[in-house]
Amino acid sequence: MKLKHLIESQQLDIETIFTIFKRADELKNSTVKPLTGKILATLFYEPSTRTRLSFESAMLRLGGYVISTENAKEFSSAIKGESLQDTIRIVSSYADIIVLRHFEEGSSKIAASVSSIPIINGGDGGGQHPTQALLDLYTIWKEIGRVDNIVIAMVGDLKYGRTVRSLCYLLGKFKNVKIIFISPENFSIKDDIKEYLKKHNIKFEEQTNLNKHLPCVDVVYMTRIQEERVSAEEYQNIKIVYKITKENLNLLKENARLLHPLPHVGEIDLPIEIEQTDRRVAYFRQAENGLYIRMALLSYLLE
Amino acid sequence: MKLKHLIESQQLDIETIFTIFKRADELKNSTVKPLTGKILATLFYEPSTRTRLSFESAMLRLGGYVISTENAKEFSSAIKGESLQDTIRIVSSYADIIVLRHFEEGSSKIAASVSSIPIINGGDGGGQHPTQALLDLYTIWKEIGRVDNIVIAMVGDLKYGRTVRSLCYLLGKFKNVKIIFISPENFSIKDDIKEYLKKHNIKFEEQTNLNKHLPCVDVVYMTRIQEERVSAEEYQNIKIVYKITKENLNLLKENARLLHPLPHVGEIDLPIEIEQTDRRVAYFRQAENGLYIRMALLSYLLE
Amino acid sequence: MKLKHLIESQQLDIETIFTIFKRADELKNSTVKPLTGKILATLFYEPSTRTRLSFESAMLRLGGYVISTENAKEFSSAIKGESLQDTIRIVSSYADIIVLRHFEEGSSKIAASVSSIPIINGGDGGGQHPTQALLDLYTIWKEIGRVDNIVIAMVGDLKYGRTVRSLCYLLGKFKNVKIIFISPENFSIKDDIKEYLKKHNIKFEEQTNLNKHLPCVDVVYMTRIQEERVSAEEYQNIKIVYKITKENLNLLKENARLLHPLPHVGEIDLPIEIEQTDRRVAYFRQAENGLYIRMALLSYLLE
Repeated sequence: MKLKHLIESQQLDIETIFTIFKRADELKNSTVKPLTGKILATLFYEPSTRTRLSFESAMLRLGGYVISTENAKEFSSAIKGESLQDTIRIVSSYADIIVLRHFEEGSSKIAASVSSIPIINGGDGGGQHPTQALLDLYTIWKEIGRVDNIVIAMVGDLKYGRTVRSLCYLLGKFKNVKIIFISPENFSIKDDIKEYLKKHNIKFEEQTNLNKHLPCVDVVYMTRIQEERVSAEEYQNIKIVYKITKENLNLLKENARLLHPLPHVGEIDLPIEIEQTDRRVAYFRQAENGLYIRMALLSYLLE
Repeated sequence: MKLKHLIESQQLDIETIFTIFKRADELKNSTVKPLTGKILATLFYEPSTRTRLSFESAMLRLGGYVISTENAKEFSSAIKGESLQDTIRIVSSYADIIVLRHFEEGSSKIAASVSSIPIINGGDGGGQHPTQALLDLYTIWKEIGRVDNIVIAMVGDLKYGRTVRSLCYLLGKFKNVKIIFISPENFSIKDDIKEYLKKHNIKFEEQTNLNKHLPCVDVVYMTRIQEERVSAEEYQNIKIVYKITKENLNLLKENARLLHPLPHVGEIDLPIEIEQTDRRVAYFRQAENGLYIRMALLSYLLE
Repeated sequence: MKLKHLIESQQLDIETIFTIFKRADELKNSTVKPLTGKILATLFYEPSTRTRLSFESAMLRLGGYVISTENAKEFSSAIKGESLQDTIRIVSSYADIIVLRHFEEGSSKIAASVSSIPIINGGDGGGQHPTQALLDLYTIWKEIGRVDNIVIAMVGDLKYGRTVRSLCYLLGKFKNVKIIFISPENFSIKDDIKEYLKKHNIKFEEQTNLNKHLPCVDVVYMTRIQEERVSAEEYQNIKIVYKITKENLNLLKENARLLHPLPHVGEIDLPIEIEQTDRRVAYFRQAENGLYIRMALLSYLLE
């Protein structure tokens, strides 16, 4: 059944995932304008320039238009006490599709419940960020050549990082995937994800030694420790615990890939020359894939 | 005589009003792009996401382009002491039409006095908001089937609410209109409006009992008490004085309509199911009409 | 050799300058859309509504699209510690050309070093603002009819004002130019510019009496003292030192021109009627020229 909204990764079945992936491949090099005359509203209650610009570029490349607010929390009627439902119902009549970024978990679900047009969750608080998960998975598929039969290390803030959570939900759909979780104390993956993975027969381990596991994985998915989650003192200690440098990058197999949802801070410390020449460094291609995945998703939801 | 700018409701005569209404009807279902290649600048010194997105969507649907600032007060040269006149003269050379939202009454008039291109007042301080008044009147026309011979209750903050003021100016052009003003103490309609109405032979009363008058009106125009106008304590008392609920909504005649310029806060307390199914609840259709009225106005001023 | 990026005025040789000027003349009255389907990203880490809207209008008039952030410092991943290089590499994959405005000198150079697409410096801290210099020079060329053989007075903040610095670099390319620098104490032109001018055989003087020199110049280039550079007390004294009024404007030759990069504050004190009718007042035409120069530059860099 075709999706109306994209709220969380769990909604996506394998068929839909590959429909979107193949659409992304097609649209990447195409000059067709299937969304001519359609309007995307990017409604961002929390600024996220990268995600917003990526969606807007995707819409424009498909021939569509964009209306936008990059700081709806302060600039919109939210400040006068308007409910999100009311805002969505009104913006629904101005646009053909909405990307919602919100600081509260569950906001996209609420928005979808009253919207007459498709809602895409562009990240909601501690909740999900399903287009990031889609582009992460698409990058694995393009770079490794498969999604089944992979070993992936997820490293960093696994507790609060919503990209990790969303990606786990997607990986749960595939076969013979093994996940190695590596995180500082107090940042380990939550039980709900572990239960989901068990239910879907995904093998996983919780480990603490990054370098030991680098030679064994197909993909390393690094994430940033979010400074705002811990005290300044703790942050100084934690941020250097797990790090990819010139040295341990070489522990990776030749065909393995280093992914990161970006922005990265201290957890990746590679010279620009290596980022530009070592094929294993995939995170800028990953960011670019965001454009194609979002083109594919906009086209899929609006067709 | 054709208008060059839209600064205040009083400028609009009946012929122009109906020219715009009929244009709105036509453009609503049309795919013509009469403004291809034209550029709208939305110059907002005070954020108002709804009004801005509505104008921008209108322009894009007509084939035009948009350049925009949603927070000119902080982001533009205003902060360096540039006069509004200078800003307008410069932006005039970048765009074909300007929507100006400003925090100071009279700003649009000043802008129009130096502009080489049409200026639309998108709300200026305690002043006017003429496109809101136009869409309110258009909604009455579409929903009730006429503008002459109606009884309308205006409820809430009648003193500071500029939408009420602008709408009164428009209603003054029609025949056999009766207005019932219902407001908390200290929020009653100002003398200048009363004088205007007298001069134009519009009957009006000032009343205090909302429920008593609900069965007699064709239209209830509810407005929000603006929290920033009163002390926190007063606000708590005042905000519940006049309220539409599931119960008193049913006092309305079957063909009557409930309007609100939105956002609404406590003064409308209806379950979503009733908002979605009770034909008398017209405020989301009213918001949507804003799009068609703004399309019509842009097209009218730029043709 | 064709430029890939525009980072500083010195990069522009006479041939490129006149290629862009002639392109500006052509595009001014043309309806061709040479940039159809191309995307401009305006990445502003420091708000500057005028510069941004001017670039965006230029891009739209050429048939292109725009993605934009007007406050990247607060809204983008910069706040999470992302390097400018990383941001540029990512935005490079979303757009075809970037205009960067940044609060730090040298930012555009850094951006260009990692960008796969053209970077235009839209002003970087105390550094340069080369498109302003180009439009200033274009205005001189259009208004005076030549750039060689002119006498130009530069007045105001010559120390911090980056437009003055960038314009000096351009004037250094021409013949028989004489510059008269007139500034309050502590705001005089820096030694690096003086050395550059000497090296390029440009005559210059440092003077203190504005009125004495007004009758002798072809162009007066006034600039604003930036309030933030001095104490409140000093500012009150300094801002009135050099001023163009109704009276001393008439000291100018009939064919001389008054330019200003705008916004102007107290240093120009002319009634609107004179601004609108006295042909010598050229600064609004100068601002309009910014549009044509930016159209020409976008077209030149993307062709």
